[in-house]
Amino acid sequence: MISVGIIGGTGYTGKYLIEYCTKHPYIKDFNIYAKTSAGENLHSVFPQLVGTVEDQTINSVENISLNHDAYFIALPHGESLNYIPSLESTNKLVIDLGGDYRLDEESLYEKWYNYTHSSSYLLSKKVYGLADESIDYTNTNLISNPGCYPTGSLLALLPLVKNFSENILSISISAYSGTSGAGKSPKADLMLSEMDGNVKAYNVNKHRHLPEIAQELAKAGYNRNLSFTTHLLPISKGIYTTCSIHLKNELDENSILETYKNDYTNSNYIRLRTTPPDLSWVVNTNYCDINICLSGKTLIITSAIDNLIKGASGQAMQNMNQYFGWENTLGIMDSKLNVIDKKLISA
Amino acid sequence: MISVGIIGGTGYTGKYLIEYCTKHPYIKDFNIYAKTSAGENLHSVFPQLVGTVEDQTINSVENISLNHDAYFIALPHGESLNYIPSLESTNKLVIDLGGDYRLDEESLYEKWYNYTHSSSYLLSKKVYGLADESIDYTNTNLISNPGCYPTGSLLALLPLVKNFSENILSISISAYSGTSGAGKSPKADLMLSEMDGNVKAYNVNKHRHLPEIAQELAKAGYNRNLSFTTHLLPISKGIYTTCSIHLKNELDENSILETYKNDYTNSNYIRLRTTPPDLSWVVNTNYCDINICLSGKTLIITSAIDNLIKGASGQAMQNMNQYFGWENTLGIMDSKLNVIDKKLISA
Amino acid sequence: MISVGIIGGTGYTGKYLIEYCTKHPYIKDFNIYAKTSAGENLHSVFPQLVGTVEDQTINSVENISLNHDAYFIALPHGESLNYIPSLESTNKLVIDLGGDYRLDEESLYEKWYNYTHSSSYLLSKKVYGLADESIDYTNTNLISNPGCYPTGSLLALLPLVKNFSENILSISISAYSGTSGAGKSPKADLMLSEMDGNVKAYNVNKHRHLPEIAQELAKAGYNRNLSFTTHLLPISKGIYTTCSIHLKNELDENSILETYKNDYTNSNYIRLRTTPPDLSWVVNTNYCDINICLSGKTLIITSAIDNLIKGASGQAMQNMNQYFGWENTLGIMDSKLNVIDKKLISA
Amino acid sequence: MISVGIIGGTGYTGKYLIEYCTKHPYIKDFNIYAKTSAGENLHSVFPQLVGTVEDQTINSVENISLNHDAYFIALPHGESLNYIPSLESTNKLVIDLGGDYRLDEESLYEKWYNYTHSSSYLLSKKVYGLADESIDYTNTNLISNPGCYPTGSLLALLPLVKNFSENILSISISAYSGTSGAGKSPKADLMLSEMDGNVKAYNVNKHRHLPEIAQELAKAGYNRNLSFTTHLLPISKGIYTTCSIHLKNELDENSILETYKNDYTNSNYIRLRTTPPDLSWVVNTNYCDINICLSGKTLIITSAIDNLIKGASGQAMQNMNQYFGWENTLGIMDSKLNVIDKKLISA
Repeated sequence: MISVGIIGGTGYTGKYLIEYCTKHPYIKDFNIYAKTSAGENLHSVFPQLVGTVEDQTINSVENISLNHDAYFIALPHGESLNYIPSLESTNKLVIDLGGDYRLDEESLYEKWYNYTHSSSYLLSKKVYGLADESIDYTNTNLISNPGCYPTGSLLALLPLVKNFSENILSISISAYSGTSGAGKSPKADLMLSEMDGNVKAYNVNKHRHLPEIAQELAKAGYNRNLSFTTHLLPISKGIYTTCSIHLKNELDENSILETYKNDYTNSNYIRLRTTPPDLSWVVNTNYCDINICLSGKTLIITSAIDNLIKGASGQAMQNMNQYFGWENTLGIMDSKLNVIDKKLISA
Repeated sequence: MISVGIIGGTGYTGKYLIEYCTKHPYIKDFNIYAKTSAGENLHSVFPQLVGTVEDQTINSVENISLNHDAYFIALPHGESLNYIPSLESTNKLVIDLGGDYRLDEESLYEKWYNYTHSSSYLLSKKVYGLADESIDYTNTNLISNPGCYPTGSLLALLPLVKNFSENILSISISAYSGTSGAGKSPKADLMLSEMDGNVKAYNVNKHRHLPEIAQELAKAGYNRNLSFTTHLLPISKGIYTTCSIHLKNELDENSILETYKNDYTNSNYIRLRTTPPDLSWVVNTNYCDINICLSGKTLIITSAIDNLIKGASGQAMQNMNQYFGWENTLGIMDSKLNVIDKKLISA
Repeated sequence: MISVGIIGGTGYTGKYLIEYCTKHPYIKDFNIYAKTSAGENLHSVFPQLVGTVEDQTINSVENISLNHDAYFIALPHGESLNYIPSLESTNKLVIDLGGDYRLDEESLYEKWYNYTHSSSYLLSKKVYGLADESIDYTNTNLISNPGCYPTGSLLALLPLVKNFSENILSISISAYSGTSGAGKSPKADLMLSEMDGNVKAYNVNKHRHLPEIAQELAKAGYNRNLSFTTHLLPISKGIYTTCSIHLKNELDENSILETYKNDYTNSNYIRLRTTPPDLSWVVNTNYCDINICLSGKTLIITSAIDNLIKGASGQAMQNMNQYFGWENTLGIMDSKLNVIDKKLISA
Repeated sequence: MISVGIIGGTGYTGKYLIEYCTKHPYIKDFNIYAKTSAGENLHSVFPQLVGTVEDQTINSVENISLNHDAYFIALPHGESLNYIPSLESTNKLVIDLGGDYRLDEESLYEKWYNYTHSSSYLLSKKVYGLADESIDYTNTNLISNPGCYPTGSLLALLPLVKNFSENILSISISAYSGTSGAGKSPKADLMLSEMDGNVKAYNVNKHRHLPEIAQELAKAGYNRNLSFTTHLLPISKGIYTTCSIHLKNELDENSILETYKNDYTNSNYIRLRTTPPDLSWVVNTNYCDINICLSGKTLIITSAIDNLIKGASGQAMQNMNQYFGWENTLGIMDSKLNVIDKKLISA
């Protein structure tokens, strides 16, 4: 039984971490730390959790206990830097849900995040926690949880790239997200009055998740033509990702499919679909649904995830379970529910 | 460990019954029976359940096994009549989620449902399963699960009516529901293209849930001025109910609140709120959130439920648990999650 | 040809005033005045108006020209007071879209608006501009445009109250509004992430539109049991109002209908419907659709309006047209479009 | 003054054609023809048009008058073939909003539409009516109105392709549409209950608009790597198109922009934006908003249209105006509103 600290636990991802910690059979207790909500009660921050989560007073991030066994950091980028080095040095498990340790190169933080990294020695020590890939957790206690968009994009692309990199002419990723990805702070352009019935592209060619995707694709062998365009949807939750890949030579669809089945054979959160998934199939779950559709030299791969769960808190909890060698559904879903088989799923 | 039959299990309420049965620790197996989907696989009807519920072939309602220990009937009204009398006669538990046994008077079926009841002897034998009221299940094996609107309305009104009936001048119920209450069959006026951004009243003074509400209020002592207006919202799930009560004489708000706290002291699914609830607080849960606001002789009581859960499948499962004397959260939510206390909840 | 000043013209209602002024054949020019947006360009505030409205620089409210012939004031309540007395004294037409002059009694401002009225002498001089009622504009140049909720409620209720007041036992108004009624300023609880799929009651028994409705109903002869509950919908625009009236004695539905037809015989913006209206029928129009449904002593009247048009800017423009004796569709809709007849409309 | 026939006028596009014909100063009358709705009244099919459009009885497509001066055909594909050859032979203007004449090659209908074309001699006679391109209407009276997706895609791509074709390595189009594009017939997967909060790709590599886009890009000089993926959004109206273009060599963003400004210098419905457009900016208008964003050899072009207006009825009316040499805003928007200038628009 472990004790957990949730730092920055009053945002949208915090809510899920709190629910998972409550349900987790090996978590004996957890404390929530926040900045502006410090001193408030959990039930007043999350009225919907009354009855399912016991109330507690939210602590200040100024007073983080070093006695927890694991820490989830759900702070805006640039802020994790202030807490993680000292927590990491205690050898407790630290899972950062923000972007401060995702990139491997210090210089990329100057370029994409506009700051000088103050603990860059951790960039090479951390593991990038794309939890449905085979991850070696043995030499680190710092897990950098992937961004929401990179999760949807990389799970859709990595098996292809690892196996057919040379045959790829270009990759264009078009990703659409619900507004919860932008966080809880009030913003004029995210009001329902503005977003009702609306869609828009944003941060074109400038999104911080682009270097993260490029980095992981490069590690898998692909570093050529890549575009990544993000959009906001008039819904709260979910990311739908459409990857358009132009191939140099024709491929066989079955051989691509086999690659995905093999790569994800040990993952119980990937569902390969015979049709493009509905986003609604994955919302409120830790699943990533993937469909592959080949026509000549045009390959379309679609994926769907819940941005706050598979794209954040669910994947973080999965990482914790896997780090400790536990069944990876603990806390996330009832352990009775885990009957996925690896055949291709026709909807 | 029991075996369960879910009849009409491929609709919106069926999906939740299937999930609850899968998670329930005392249910060893369940079979699904349907009409048009008979012969199909569960996973093709509910692609979102892949991974969490094992696949099975859907059986025909023509071949319902008599070997189950409990039956949930989720058929359109008028159809339950064809199955329930024979199932009921085996002394197995039968829970009807439809309207065919909710009313106590045979003549009301002629008036409101336009049919002659073929098993009216069961109307007095059944128990009306408003599961957060104290129900005596001892003399019946037929539970008539309340309608979705009556659940939201009656939970909001019964403690008041039972204690202050004489002081009530009039009750006006205005209830708003998501479209899933209308079922899965395609209908032109429920297409997203029509309902996007839309709201409309329907079945004014003619909704079949009106006599059901009137019946239960009358049993509690009130049979005077009552109106009930139903509306459709441009959302999938949830019912928001606003009850406007004009009083003859002023009352004390605290004495009303005490009544509610006392009445629901044993119910772990009622959350009394100090502000009107957000519908989002209860969606995907079995909770009913209630707020009471008194000003002079005007009393406004608001309630919020998930129409498919508290208003259908969650309440049905709660009824089954209570009937068998089990903890009433089994199947519905992780038993670790049940920490509601009876103090008034400030959001 | 007149010149118009739009004060507070950068909010949601301002956008419609700008479009109507652009299309209006008798408006030669208009200027926009605002506080925080002063100095910005109209096209940057309203990118969607590029192409249909010529750009102009937004002026400061500190520099309102006295040379306009008519003024629309679309400021938050409490702020109109700072501008209207001096504008009104020039004898130009002043139409206030806010609440600062709607109530007749100075004391009500202390109670409901929490301020001491600084120009209460205008409360009796102004006319309350419910534009589809017969209004006498002859003795005033100050029109107080009704609130959005009162517009939907009063248009639904006034013909009844004027003719059958003595027979009414109680009136309960349940009104549901899109979020644009709350304005453009960012608020945490109006973000799409919070309101998606959500509904909630607010300001129960405390909404400032309650005394406004009560005042006008009292003038029409009814001052007894009245409740008014407001709710937010997960849509941007529209108000749906359901009035539940309990009668002392039975009435004839046709005689009620005749009353409405007679009362609105000269109004081309009221559409009497044989079924409850869809909210979508009136969004983006200046119509108010009304349905009356009687059953015994229970009367349900539903109405639907666009809160920003009929509930604000459309009605304001209609008031201006009527004040000057012009065709009341000018600016609001193409004059070719005005073919409504007074028979009851079956949908 | 002309007389117009609207064939298939009771669907979503029909509604706009009816409104435009009503407002159009040179249309003296119009008749509506339909199949299943024949004999019904216009006001019962479109209750929202009461007051703005005079009622008329809907005629049967079996009895199309040959006395109209222009015809709009808004029928499902495969059905226009039954009416257009005879109408076209009368030398009246015929504008087909369906797909039956969009493709130039007869064989493509076998492949993509699964039928043998019965009037293929018209494929070369028709003009493809992408109305914001310079179209020569002189030698035809048959205008094939572009598909909704091709309108958004081609307006975004054609100026680029016409001028920089050789430099393009690949084009990937990801387009998202509201559900109204799928028509009014009830379909289970387009119910609000299914689509609320949902997104999904469909017809991947199989959408009939793909050969249409490929055909027009090929005419403009590009016939290499092209993908086109369509998705459904949980909104009623609008298409958002994101074109990702990988270039062989770097280009200058200004030179691309100049190309677009020049190409669209005579078009009053194209708005070039300095940021990606909001879909809400164009909904309920005939505008197409376009943004160009270049970074190295990656070019992202986004466009937004209303699928029923610019993508169907608005463009059809624009084609009619342009065919007859009239101001192209007639019927579509108040002629006073046409002040767009050609400078780049900063939002």
